Amino acid sequence: MDKKNGFFITFEGPEGAGKSSQVRMLAEHLTALGMECILTREPGGTPLAEDIRQVVKSHHSSEPVHPETELLLMEAARSQHVHEVILPALAAGKTVICDRFYDSTTAYQGGARNLPLDTINILNSFAAAGRKPDLTFLMDLPPEVGFERIRSRESEGYDRFENENIQFHRTVRQAFIDLAAGEPERVKVIDATADIATISGQIRKIVDEHLR
Amino acid sequence: MDKKNGFFITFEGPEGAGKSSQVRMLAEHLTALGMECILTREPGGTPLAEDIRQVVKSHHSSEPVHPETELLLMEAARSQHVHEVILPALAAGKTVICDRFYDSTTAYQGGARNLPLDTINILNSFAAAGRKPDLTFLMDLPPEVGFERIRSRESEGYDRFENENIQFHRTVRQAFIDLAAGEPERVKVIDATADIATISGQIRKIVDEHLR
Repeated sequence: MDKKNGFFITFEGPEGAGKSSQVRMLAEHLTALGMECILTREPGGTPLAEDIRQVVKSHHSSEPVHPETELLLMEAARSQHVHEVILPALAAGKTVICDRFYDSTTAYQGGARNLPLDTINILNSFAAAGRKPDLTFLMDLPPEVGFERIRSRESEGYDRFENENIQFHRTVRQAFIDLAAGEPERVKVIDATADIATISGQIRKIVDEHLR
Repeated sequence: MDKKNGFFITFEGPEGAGKSSQVRMLAEHLTALGMECILTREPGGTPLAEDIRQVVKSHHSSEPVHPETELLLMEAARSQHVHEVILPALAAGKTVICDRFYDSTTAYQGGARNLPLDTINILNSFAAAGRKPDLTFLMDLPPEVGFERIRSRESEGYDRFENENIQFHRTVRQAFIDLAAGEPERVKVIDATADIATISGQIRKIVDEHLR
Protein backbone atom coordinates (compact mmCIF):
# COMPACT_ATOMS: atom_id res chain seq x y z
CA MET A 1 0.00 0.00 0.00
CA ASP A 2 1.26 3.45 -0.92
CA LYS A 3 1.99 5.33 2.28
CA LYS A 4 1.02 8.57 0.55
CA ASN A 5 -2.42 7.27 -0.36
CA GLY A 6 -4.65 5.56 2.18
CA PHE A 7 -6.91 2.56 1.75
CA PHE A 8 -10.50 3.16 0.62
CA ILE A 9 -13.08 0.55 1.64
CA THR A 10 -16.82 0.75 0.97
CA PHE A 11 -19.79 -1.29 2.18
CA GLU A 12 -22.85 -1.84 0.03
CA GLY A 13 -26.11 -3.73 0.34
CA PRO A 14 -29.69 -3.24 1.51
CA GLU A 15 -30.94 -1.90 4.80
CA GLY A 16 -30.93 -4.63 7.42
CA ALA A 17 -27.77 -6.28 6.04
CA GLY A 18 -25.66 -5.18 9.01
CA LYS A 19 -23.42 -2.72 7.17
CA SER A 20 -22.99 -0.25 10.03
CA SER A 21 -21.98 -2.98 12.52
CA GLN A 22 -19.39 -4.34 10.11
CA VAL A 23 -18.05 -0.85 9.36
CA ARG A 24 -17.54 -0.30 13.09
CA MET A 25 -15.95 -3.71 13.72
CA LEU A 26 -13.58 -3.34 10.77
CA ALA A 27 -12.55 0.11 11.97
CA GLU A 28 -11.79 -1.31 15.44
CA HIS A 29 -9.71 -4.05 13.86
CA LEU A 30 -7.70 -1.68 11.67
CA THR A 31 -7.24 0.84 14.47
CA ALA A 32 -5.83 -1.97 16.62
CA LEU A 33 -3.35 -2.61 13.81
CA GLY A 34 -2.24 1.02 14.12
CA MET A 35 -4.09 2.38 11.09
CA GLU A 36 -5.86 5.73 11.32
CA CYS A 37 -9.47 5.24 10.14
CA ILE A 38 -12.14 7.69 9.02
CA LEU A 39 -15.72 6.38 9.09
CA THR A 40 -18.17 8.14 6.82
CA ARG A 41 -21.39 7.51 4.97
CA GLU A 42 -23.51 8.40 1.97
CA PRO A 43 -25.74 10.10 1.24
CA GLY A 44 -24.31 12.99 3.22
CA GLY A 45 -20.90 13.24 4.80
CA THR A 46 -20.55 17.05 4.86
CA PRO A 47 -22.93 19.89 5.83
CA LEU A 48 -23.33 20.92 2.17
CA ALA A 49 -23.89 17.32 1.08
CA GLU A 50 -26.58 17.12 3.78
CA ASP A 51 -28.19 20.28 2.34
CA ILE A 52 -28.29 18.58 -1.06
CA ARG A 53 -29.81 15.49 0.57
CA GLN A 54 -32.57 17.73 1.98
CA VAL A 55 -33.31 19.03 -1.52
CA VAL A 56 -33.67 15.44 -2.78
CA LYS A 57 -36.20 14.80 -0.02
CA SER A 58 -38.01 18.12 -0.47
CA HIS A 59 -41.56 18.16 -1.73
CA HIS A 60 -42.95 21.08 -3.60
CA SER A 61 -46.64 20.96 -4.26
CA SER A 62 -47.18 19.29 -7.62
CA GLU A 63 -43.48 19.32 -8.47
CA PRO A 64 -41.96 15.84 -8.35
CA VAL A 65 -38.18 15.39 -8.17
CA HIS A 66 -37.54 13.85 -11.60
CA PRO A 67 -35.32 10.71 -11.56
CA GLU A 68 -32.62 12.42 -13.65
CA THR A 69 -32.59 15.34 -11.20
CA GLU A 70 -32.35 12.92 -8.27
CA LEU A 71 -29.36 11.19 -9.88
CA LEU A 72 -27.56 14.49 -10.49
CA LEU A 73 -28.24 15.65 -6.92
CA MET A 74 -26.91 12.36 -5.50
CA GLU A 75 -23.76 12.78 -7.59
CA ALA A 76 -23.40 16.42 -6.52
CA ALA A 77 -23.55 15.35 -2.85
CA ARG A 78 -21.01 12.59 -3.61
CA SER A 79 -18.67 15.01 -5.37
CA GLN A 80 -18.70 17.31 -2.35
CA HIS A 81 -18.13 14.37 0.03
CA VAL A 82 -15.28 13.02 -2.09
CA HIS A 83 -13.48 16.34 -2.52
CA GLU A 84 -14.08 17.59 1.01
CA VAL A 85 -13.65 14.41 3.10
CA ILE A 86 -12.52 11.28 1.28
CA LEU A 87 -9.69 12.53 -0.96
CA PRO A 88 -8.03 14.67 1.75
CA ALA A 89 -8.16 11.73 4.21
CA LEU A 90 -6.68 9.33 1.64
CA ALA A 91 -4.02 11.88 0.70
CA ALA A 92 -3.07 12.05 4.38
CA GLY A 93 -2.58 8.27 4.32
CA LYS A 94 -5.71 7.51 6.35
CA THR A 95 -8.01 4.54 5.78
CA VAL A 96 -11.50 5.61 4.73
CA ILE A 97 -14.41 3.27 5.41
CA CYS A 98 -17.61 4.45 3.77
CA ASP A 99 -21.12 3.08 4.40
CA ARG A 100 -22.55 3.13 0.84
CA PHE A 101 -20.80 4.72 -2.12
CA TYR A 102 -21.33 4.87 -5.84
CA ASP A 103 -22.31 1.23 -6.32
CA SER A 104 -25.55 2.15 -4.54
CA THR A 105 -26.24 4.65 -7.30
CA THR A 106 -25.59 1.98 -9.92
CA ALA A 107 -27.93 -0.46 -8.18
CA TYR A 108 -30.74 1.91 -7.16
CA GLN A 109 -30.79 4.56 -9.89
CA GLY A 110 -29.47 2.28 -12.63
CA GLY A 111 -30.83 -1.15 -11.79
CA ALA A 112 -34.10 -0.25 -10.16
CA ARG A 113 -34.94 3.20 -11.61
CA ASN A 114 -33.66 2.18 -15.02
CA LEU A 115 -31.55 5.24 -15.76
CA PRO A 116 -28.82 4.55 -18.38
CA LEU A 117 -25.83 2.70 -16.88
CA ASP A 118 -23.27 4.31 -19.19
CA THR A 119 -24.28 7.76 -17.95
CA ILE A 120 -24.28 6.57 -14.33
CA ASN A 121 -20.77 5.15 -14.76
CA ILE A 122 -19.51 8.47 -16.14
CA LEU A 123 -21.20 10.41 -13.34
CA ASN A 124 -19.90 8.03 -10.66
CA SER A 125 -16.38 8.38 -11.94
CA PHE A 126 -16.62 12.17 -12.26
CA ALA A 127 -18.12 12.62 -8.77
CA ALA A 128 -15.46 10.31 -7.29
CA ALA A 129 -12.70 12.23 -9.14
CA GLY A 130 -11.73 8.92 -10.73
CA ARG A 131 -10.95 7.32 -7.34
CA LYS A 132 -12.32 3.78 -7.13
CA PRO A 133 -12.71 2.04 -3.79
CA ASP A 134 -9.84 -0.38 -3.21
CA LEU A 135 -12.26 -2.91 -1.72
CA THR A 136 -16.03 -3.08 -1.62
CA PHE A 137 -18.02 -5.47 0.55
CA LEU A 138 -21.42 -6.29 -0.83
CA MET A 139 -23.53 -7.46 2.10
CA ASP A 140 -25.92 -9.66 0.17
CA LEU A 141 -29.30 -10.48 1.65
CA PRO A 142 -32.64 -11.70 0.26
CA PRO A 143 -35.12 -8.79 0.54
CA GLU A 144 -37.47 -10.91 2.66
CA VAL A 145 -34.76 -11.39 5.32
CA GLY A 146 -33.83 -7.71 5.43
CA PHE A 147 -37.51 -6.87 5.68
CA GLU A 148 -37.99 -9.17 8.70
CA ARG A 149 -34.89 -7.80 10.44
CA ILE A 150 -35.99 -4.19 10.03
CA ARG A 151 -39.54 -4.95 11.15
CA SER A 152 -38.23 -6.53 14.35
CA ARG A 153 -36.03 -3.57 15.29
CA GLU A 154 -37.65 -0.31 14.23
CA SER A 155 -41.04 0.88 13.17
CA GLU A 156 -39.64 3.76 11.10
CA GLY A 157 -37.44 1.47 9.05
CA TYR A 158 -40.37 -0.84 8.51
CA ASP A 159 -42.36 1.95 6.92
CA ARG A 160 -39.41 3.03 4.84
CA PHE A 161 -38.88 -0.49 3.57
CA GLU A 162 -42.52 -1.01 2.76
CA ASN A 163 -42.58 2.11 0.64
CA GLU A 164 -41.01 0.18 -2.21
CA ASN A 165 -42.36 -3.21 -3.14
CA ILE A 166 -40.42 -6.43 -2.86
CA GLN A 167 -39.80 -6.57 -6.60
CA PHE A 168 -37.94 -3.27 -6.40
CA HIS A 169 -35.60 -4.73 -3.78
CA ARG A 170 -35.09 -7.89 -5.83
CA THR A 171 -34.05 -5.74 -8.78
CA VAL A 172 -31.62 -3.77 -6.61
CA ARG A 173 -30.16 -7.02 -5.24
CA GLN A 174 -29.65 -8.40 -8.75
CA ALA A 175 -28.00 -5.15 -9.85
CA PHE A 176 -25.54 -5.40 -6.94
CA ILE A 177 -24.78 -9.05 -7.80
CA ASP A 178 -24.21 -8.21 -11.49
CA LEU A 179 -21.91 -5.40 -10.46
CA ALA A 180 -19.87 -7.72 -8.21
CA ALA A 181 -19.61 -10.27 -11.03
CA GLY A 182 -18.21 -7.58 -13.30
CA GLU A 183 -15.53 -6.47 -10.82
CA PRO A 184 -14.67 -9.54 -8.72
CA GLU A 185 -11.28 -8.17 -7.63
CA ARG A 186 -12.82 -5.09 -6.05
CA VAL A 187 -16.32 -6.20 -4.99
CA LYS A 188 -16.51 -9.09 -2.53
CA VAL A 189 -19.91 -10.66 -1.96
CA ILE A 190 -20.59 -11.46 1.69
CA ASP A 191 -23.49 -13.70 2.73
CA ALA A 192 -25.22 -11.33 5.14
CA THR A 193 -27.51 -14.08 6.48
CA ALA A 194 -24.51 -15.45 8.43
CA ASP A 195 -23.92 -14.38 12.04
CA ILE A 196 -22.15 -11.12 12.75
CA ALA A 197 -18.90 -12.67 14.04
CA THR A 198 -18.55 -15.00 11.04
CA ILE A 199 -19.03 -12.09 8.66
CA SER A 200 -16.60 -9.92 10.59
CA GLY A 201 -13.99 -12.70 10.39
CA GLN A 202 -14.44 -13.04 6.63
CA ILE A 203 -14.08 -9.31 6.12
CA ARG A 204 -10.93 -9.08 8.28
CA LYS A 205 -9.35 -11.93 6.37
CA ILE A 206 -9.97 -10.26 3.00
CA VAL A 207 -8.78 -6.86 4.22
CA ASP A 208 -5.67 -8.32 5.84
CA GLU A 209 -4.79 -10.08 2.59
CA HIS A 210 -5.16 -6.81 0.68
CA LEU A 211 -3.01 -4.94 3.17
CA ARG A 212 -0.16 -7.44 2.87
CA MET B 1 -41.93 22.85 -37.82
CA ASP B 2 -43.49 19.79 -36.19
CA LYS B 3 -46.84 20.83 -34.73
CA LYS B 4 -46.41 18.28 -31.95
CA ASN B 5 -43.09 19.76 -30.86
CA GLY B 6 -42.66 23.47 -30.29
CA PHE B 7 -39.72 25.69 -31.10
CA PHE B 8 -36.92 26.01 -28.53
CA ILE B 9 -34.87 29.23 -28.58
CA THR B 10 -32.13 30.16 -26.13
CA PHE B 11 -30.18 33.36 -25.51
CA GLU B 12 -26.60 33.33 -24.28
CA GLY B 13 -23.95 35.90 -23.51
CA PRO B 14 -22.63 37.98 -20.63
CA GLU B 15 -24.50 40.22 -18.25
CA GLY B 16 -25.08 43.61 -19.84
CA ALA B 17 -25.54 42.18 -23.35
CA GLY B 18 -29.28 42.91 -23.38
CA LYS B 19 -30.53 39.31 -23.36
CA SER B 20 -33.65 39.94 -21.30
CA SER B 21 -34.81 42.82 -23.55
CA GLN B 22 -34.34 40.69 -26.66
CA VAL B 23 -36.14 37.74 -25.07
CA ARG B 24 -39.11 39.99 -24.35
CA MET B 25 -39.13 41.60 -27.79
CA LEU B 26 -38.89 38.26 -29.59
CA ALA B 27 -41.75 36.89 -27.49
CA GLU B 28 -43.89 39.90 -28.45
CA HIS B 29 -43.09 39.34 -32.11
CA LEU B 30 -43.92 35.62 -32.03
CA THR B 31 -47.06 36.17 -29.98
CA ALA B 32 -48.22 38.69 -32.61
CA LEU B 33 -47.71 35.92 -35.19
CA GLY B 34 -50.12 33.76 -33.16
CA MET B 35 -47.53 31.55 -31.46
CA GLU B 36 -47.90 30.66 -27.80
CA CYS B 37 -44.64 31.53 -26.02
CA ILE B 38 -43.21 30.50 -22.67
CA LEU B 39 -40.43 32.72 -21.30
CA THR B 40 -38.13 31.12 -18.78
CA ARG B 41 -34.58 31.41 -17.48
CA GLU B 42 -31.65 29.58 -15.96
CA PRO B 43 -30.47 29.04 -13.36
CA GLY B 44 -33.85 28.40 -11.82
CA GLY B 45 -37.16 28.04 -13.58
CA THR B 46 -38.99 25.90 -10.98
CA PRO B 47 -39.25 26.09 -7.16
CA LEU B 48 -37.05 22.99 -6.77
CA ALA B 49 -34.49 24.34 -9.25
CA GLU B 50 -34.45 27.55 -7.19
CA ASP B 51 -33.78 25.47 -4.05
CA ILE B 52 -30.82 23.90 -5.83
CA ARG B 53 -29.63 27.36 -6.84
CA GLN B 54 -29.71 28.35 -3.16
CA VAL B 55 -27.49 25.37 -2.30
CA VAL B 56 -24.97 26.50 -4.95
CA LYS B 57 -24.90 29.93 -3.30
CA SER B 58 -24.80 28.57 0.26
CA HIS B 59 -21.74 29.09 2.39
CA HIS B 60 -20.84 26.70 5.12
CA SER B 61 -17.99 27.80 7.33
CA SER B 62 -14.79 26.43 5.87
CA GLU B 63 -16.61 24.25 3.34
CA PRO B 64 -16.21 25.56 -0.21
CA VAL B 65 -18.56 24.39 -2.97
CA HIS B 66 -16.11 22.40 -5.11
CA PRO B 67 -16.25 23.20 -8.86
CA GLU B 68 -17.33 19.62 -9.70
CA THR B 69 -20.14 19.88 -7.15
CA GLU B 70 -21.20 23.23 -8.58
CA LEU B 71 -21.35 21.74 -12.08
CA LEU B 72 -23.47 18.78 -10.93
CA LEU B 73 -25.82 21.09 -9.02
CA MET B 74 -26.25 23.34 -12.06
CA GLU B 75 -27.06 20.28 -14.16
CA ALA B 76 -29.51 18.98 -11.53
CA ALA B 77 -31.34 22.33 -11.60
CA ARG B 78 -31.33 22.20 -15.41
CA SER B 79 -32.69 18.65 -15.45
CA GLN B 80 -35.57 19.67 -13.20
CA HIS B 81 -36.28 22.76 -15.33
CA VAL B 82 -36.17 20.74 -18.57
CA HIS B 83 -38.42 17.90 -17.35
CA GLU B 84 -40.84 20.11 -15.44
CA VAL B 85 -41.17 23.16 -17.71
CA ILE B 86 -39.40 23.01 -21.06
CA LEU B 87 -40.27 19.53 -22.36
CA PRO B 88 -43.97 19.72 -21.40
CA ALA B 89 -44.29 23.14 -23.08
CA LEU B 90 -42.57 21.91 -26.26
CA ALA B 91 -44.70 18.76 -26.26
CA ALA B 92 -47.77 21.01 -26.12
CA GLY B 93 -46.50 22.78 -29.23
CA LYS B 94 -45.49 25.97 -27.44
CA THR B 95 -42.44 28.07 -28.23
CA VAL B 96 -39.97 28.16 -25.35
CA ILE B 97 -37.59 31.11 -25.07
CA CYS B 98 -34.97 30.60 -22.40
CA ASP B 99 -32.56 33.22 -21.03
CA ARG B 100 -29.36 31.16 -20.66
CA PHE B 101 -29.21 27.39 -21.14
CA TYR B 102 -26.49 24.78 -21.32
CA ASP B 103 -24.08 26.76 -23.45
CA SER B 104 -23.54 28.93 -20.37
CA THR B 105 -22.33 25.84 -18.52
CA THR B 106 -19.96 25.04 -21.38
CA ALA B 107 -18.59 28.60 -21.37
CA TYR B 108 -18.41 29.26 -17.62
CA GLN B 109 -17.71 25.84 -16.09
CA GLY B 110 -15.83 24.48 -19.09
CA GLY B 111 -14.11 27.49 -20.62
CA ALA B 112 -13.43 29.56 -17.55
CA ARG B 113 -13.38 27.00 -14.70
CA ASN B 114 -11.55 24.50 -16.87
CA LEU B 115 -13.70 21.44 -16.08
CA PRO B 116 -13.45 18.76 -18.82
CA LEU B 117 -15.56 19.62 -21.88
CA ASP B 118 -16.37 15.99 -22.75
CA THR B 119 -17.94 15.49 -19.31
CA ILE B 120 -19.81 18.80 -19.57
CA ASN B 121 -21.18 17.80 -22.99
CA ILE B 122 -22.47 14.50 -21.58
CA LEU B 123 -24.00 16.23 -18.57
CA ASN B 124 -25.59 18.95 -20.72
CA SER B 125 -27.15 16.36 -22.97
CA PHE B 126 -28.35 14.21 -20.05
CA ALA B 127 -29.84 17.17 -18.16
CA ALA B 128 -31.56 18.39 -21.34
CA ALA B 129 -32.91 14.88 -22.03
CA GLY B 130 -31.14 15.05 -25.39
CA ARG B 131 -33.16 18.10 -26.49
CA LYS B 132 -30.99 20.70 -28.19
CA PRO B 133 -32.18 24.26 -28.65
CA ASP B 134 -33.40 24.80 -32.22
CA LEU B 135 -31.79 28.23 -32.26
CA THR B 136 -29.38 29.96 -29.91
CA PHE B 137 -28.53 33.65 -30.02
CA LEU B 138 -25.11 34.47 -28.65
CA MET B 139 -25.21 38.12 -27.65
CA ASP B 140 -21.52 38.86 -28.07
CA LEU B 141 -19.99 41.79 -26.22
CA PRO B 142 -16.45 42.76 -25.20
CA PRO B 143 -16.24 42.44 -21.38
CA GLU B 144 -15.24 46.12 -21.07
CA VAL B 145 -18.49 47.23 -22.72
CA GLY B 146 -20.67 44.97 -20.57
CA PHE B 147 -18.83 46.24 -17.53
CA GLU B 148 -19.52 49.89 -18.40
CA ARG B 149 -23.20 49.16 -19.11
CA ILE B 150 -23.71 47.41 -15.79
CA ARG B 151 -21.84 50.09 -13.85
CA SER B 152 -24.09 52.76 -15.32
CA ARG B 153 -27.32 50.97 -14.41
CA GLU B 154 -26.96 49.15 -11.11
CA SER B 155 -24.58 49.13 -8.22
CA GLU B 156 -25.31 45.50 -7.35
CA GLY B 157 -24.45 44.30 -10.84
CA TYR B 158 -21.29 46.35 -10.73
CA ASP B 159 -20.13 44.50 -7.62
CA ARG B 160 -21.11 41.15 -9.09
CA PHE B 161 -19.20 41.87 -12.27
CA GLU B 162 -16.14 43.05 -10.45
CA ASN B 163 -16.00 39.82 -8.45
CA GLU B 164 -14.37 38.09 -11.39
CA ASN B 165 -11.51 39.74 -13.18
CA ILE B 166 -11.62 40.87 -16.77
CA GLN B 167 -9.50 37.91 -17.92
CA PHE B 168 -12.20 35.53 -16.64
CA HIS B 169 -14.80 37.30 -18.80
CA ARG B 170 -12.49 37.25 -21.81
CA THR B 171 -12.12 33.49 -21.41
CA VAL B 172 -15.90 33.06 -21.16
CA ARG B 173 -16.38 35.18 -24.28
CA GLN B 174 -13.85 33.11 -26.23
CA ALA B 175 -15.53 29.88 -25.07
CA PHE B 176 -18.89 31.16 -26.36
CA ILE B 177 -17.32 32.15 -29.69
CA ASP B 178 -15.62 28.76 -30.07
CA LEU B 179 -18.92 27.07 -29.32
CA ALA B 180 -20.72 29.12 -31.98
CA ALA B 181 -18.00 28.30 -34.51
CA GLY B 182 -18.54 24.59 -33.81
CA GLU B 183 -22.32 24.74 -34.32
CA PRO B 184 -22.97 27.59 -36.79
CA GLU B 185 -26.40 26.25 -37.79
CA ARG B 186 -27.72 26.44 -34.24
CA VAL B 187 -25.72 29.23 -32.62
CA LYS B 188 -26.01 32.68 -34.20
CA VAL B 189 -23.57 35.34 -33.05
CA ILE B 190 -25.18 38.75 -32.60
CA ASP B 191 -23.09 41.90 -32.17
CA ALA B 192 -24.53 43.14 -28.90
CA THR B 193 -22.82 46.52 -29.21
CA ALA B 194 -25.43 47.46 -31.86
CA ASP B 195 -28.57 49.32 -30.82
CA ILE B 196 -31.50 47.39 -29.42
CA ALA B 197 -33.79 47.85 -32.47
CA THR B 198 -31.12 46.73 -34.94
CA ILE B 199 -30.44 43.59 -32.87
CA SER B 200 -34.13 42.86 -32.52
CA GLY B 201 -34.54 43.12 -36.30
CA GLN B 202 -31.67 40.70 -36.91
CA ILE B 203 -33.10 38.19 -34.46
CA ARG B 204 -36.60 38.39 -35.97
CA LYS B 205 -35.19 37.83 -39.43
CA ILE B 206 -33.29 34.71 -38.37
CA VAL B 207 -36.24 33.31 -36.42
CA ASP B 208 -38.69 34.01 -39.24
CA GLU B 209 -36.40 32.17 -41.67
CA HIS B 210 -36.28 29.16 -39.35
CA LEU B 211 -40.05 29.14 -38.94
CA ARG B 212 -40.62 29.08 -42.69
